[in-house]
Amino acid sequence: MTPSSARLPRTAVIREVGLRDGLQSIATVLPTEQKREWIRAAYAAGQREIEVGSFVPARLLPQLADTRELVAFAKTLPELFVSVLVPNLRGAESAIAAQADLMIVPLSASHAHSLANLRKTPDDVVAEVARIRAARDAAGSKTLIEGGVGTAFGCTLQGHVEKSEVLRLMQALLDAGADRVSIADTVGYADPGMVRDLFDEAVRIAGDRFWCGHFHDTRGLGLANVYAALEVGVNRFDACLAGIGGCPHAPGASGNVSTEDLAYMLGSMGIDTGIDIDQLLALRKQVAEWLQGETLHGSLWQAGLPKTFGQSFATA
Amino acid sequence: MTPSSARLPRTAVIREVGLRDGLQSIATVLPTEQKREWIRAAYAAGQREIEVGSFVPARLLPQLADTRELVAFAKTLPELFVSVLVPNLRGAESAIAAQADLMIVPLSASHAHSLANLRKTPDDVVAEVARIRAARDAAGSKTLIEGGVGTAFGCTLQGHVEKSEVLRLMQALLDAGADRVSIADTVGYADPGMVRDLFDEAVRIAGDRFWCGHFHDTRGLGLANVYAALEVGVNRFDACLAGIGGCPHAPGASGNVSTEDLAYMLGSMGIDTGIDIDQLLALRKQVAEWLQGETLHGSLWQAGLPKTFGQSFATA
Repeated sequence: MTPSSARLPRTAVIREVGLRDGLQSIATVLPTEQKREWIRAAYAAGQREIEVGSFVPARLLPQLADTRELVAFAKTLPELFVSVLVPNLRGAESAIAAQADLMIVPLSASHAHSLANLRKTPDDVVAEVARIRAARDAAGSKTLIEGGVGTAFGCTLQGHVEKSEVLRLMQALLDAGADRVSIADTVGYADPGMVRDLFDEAVRIAGDRFWCGHFHDTRGLGLANVYAALEVGVNRFDACLAGIGGCPHAPGASGNVSTEDLAYMLGSMGIDTGIDIDQLLALRKQVAEWLQGETLHGSLWQAGLPKTFGQSFATA
Repeated sequence: MTPSSARLPRTAVIREVGLRDGLQSIATVLPTEQKREWIRAAYAAGQREIEVGSFVPARLLPQLADTRELVAFAKTLPELFVSVLVPNLRGAESAIAAQADLMIVPLSASHAHSLANLRKTPDDVVAEVARIRAARDAAGSKTLIEGGVGTAFGCTLQGHVEKSEVLRLMQALLDAGADRVSIADTVGYADPGMVRDLFDEAVRIAGDRFWCGHFHDTRGLGLANVYAALEVGVNRFDACLAGIGGCPHAPGASGNVSTEDLAYMLGSMGIDTGIDIDQLLALRKQVAEWLQGETLHGSLWQAGLPKTFGQSFATA
């Protein structure tokens, strides 16, 4: 452990969101059995948090129509923490019924993006989270509620998003009953300076309830942004195997940070993720076969692990 | 300017090394007139440091056989700081005769890599730098000498490289008369923790004589590594337009950090590089046409600049 890395978190969690944020963005509809195999293999590789789908109407996202079955399957794997996305109370009721461990309610800090994508203002979403909390508590359910503040660094519709508005909405989500909050750079506008600045304040406000950083690699800064977040103590990140997903406004551009590159960076830095990278790369190869014709991303799969991986830089 | 970014350098230099490190690694031999056009357009886009070639025997690197003509051309552009690579005293004599502003002497901290690639030990290279310094001074030349310590984070042949050995060799280069020293992650083994650790010590030892960070993006960490170096005050980085070049041990894997993505990251962070990114992207398009069939890299060219680029994140 180097003097500088001693200030960084010693462990980190990579939440696999490829089955939701990745698959919802591409044309291929992966059969349920292949998704099950993906979850099984990710689990075998050491991943312990997976977002398996989204409770949205199947007519909107046919790629994710099997979310209920996937939650049921994922919950058979010991210690696996199973997340789903829910856009509203109706979706939350499904997540509660399915006994998901956590449901993520997305909120867009960009009012323009929020109205265009969710047909609600950000504050409407906050009000929905309050209703979801009431329903969760009334049901005696243990499903945690995560409020995810997206387009936190700007958006392609409205451009600038006020930092103060991002933080206000994050606080409002907590006040409305969210157990966890997260921040997402939905369109790849963030740089490490912005991340450090915003995440530092967000962690001060939310404390242990700050859950996750979600970075897109649209302009190549995904891992630099993760590093900046690590420096202010954040240690849970969303990522997609093979970096699938992408920005609908930039065809071909890379989407989410790739799980394997992120696992490599964290592992190289001596930050324990519990992930076996060789197994993860084998899974990537399998998923790449399933997704033939789709644009995949990431670098590690081509270059392989360094000969020195796992050795201490400072003392070996 | 945000509180956190206030600690970072306010300006930075991107040294374009695509014409040397990039072109030497690919099969296409770019005609001299196209190289001139590249230099001219990079200059017009605001780049003020360019490594135009290498004084090595043309039979070894026919791609770079026109280095002398390119130095002469580049020196006609006002304020352009013209670098060349020289492997030995003979090359240095050519660089001195051509009146290059700076000559980079590569040294490999990995003894195995040094013997395999340069057929010299690292200390042989240090001794050669002393001879180059004597020749430079005897000629009354103003050409600066940069000692570049490569494979500083490990290498594909020997694996681990001792940090203490990297720092010893850097000090030896300074003692032998190098005016500047640099550190290179030749094979993409570095992570941000390692960079911060090593560069912090290197800058303390070399002070203002520490010149440049050279990062390969082989495993996707190039820009994260740049950010880590910025944090310890380094503000000059090598980069290749379109990320050309690459690791011969990992076909298809990305090579150097791409100039345009780096210029974007620095610009987004409010660090002035003097580069007009739109012009740089236009040049990238031109170079991509010249290099049809070669593997190119980078993300910004696909996604374009954010709508918010150039605005202050904290206050706008």
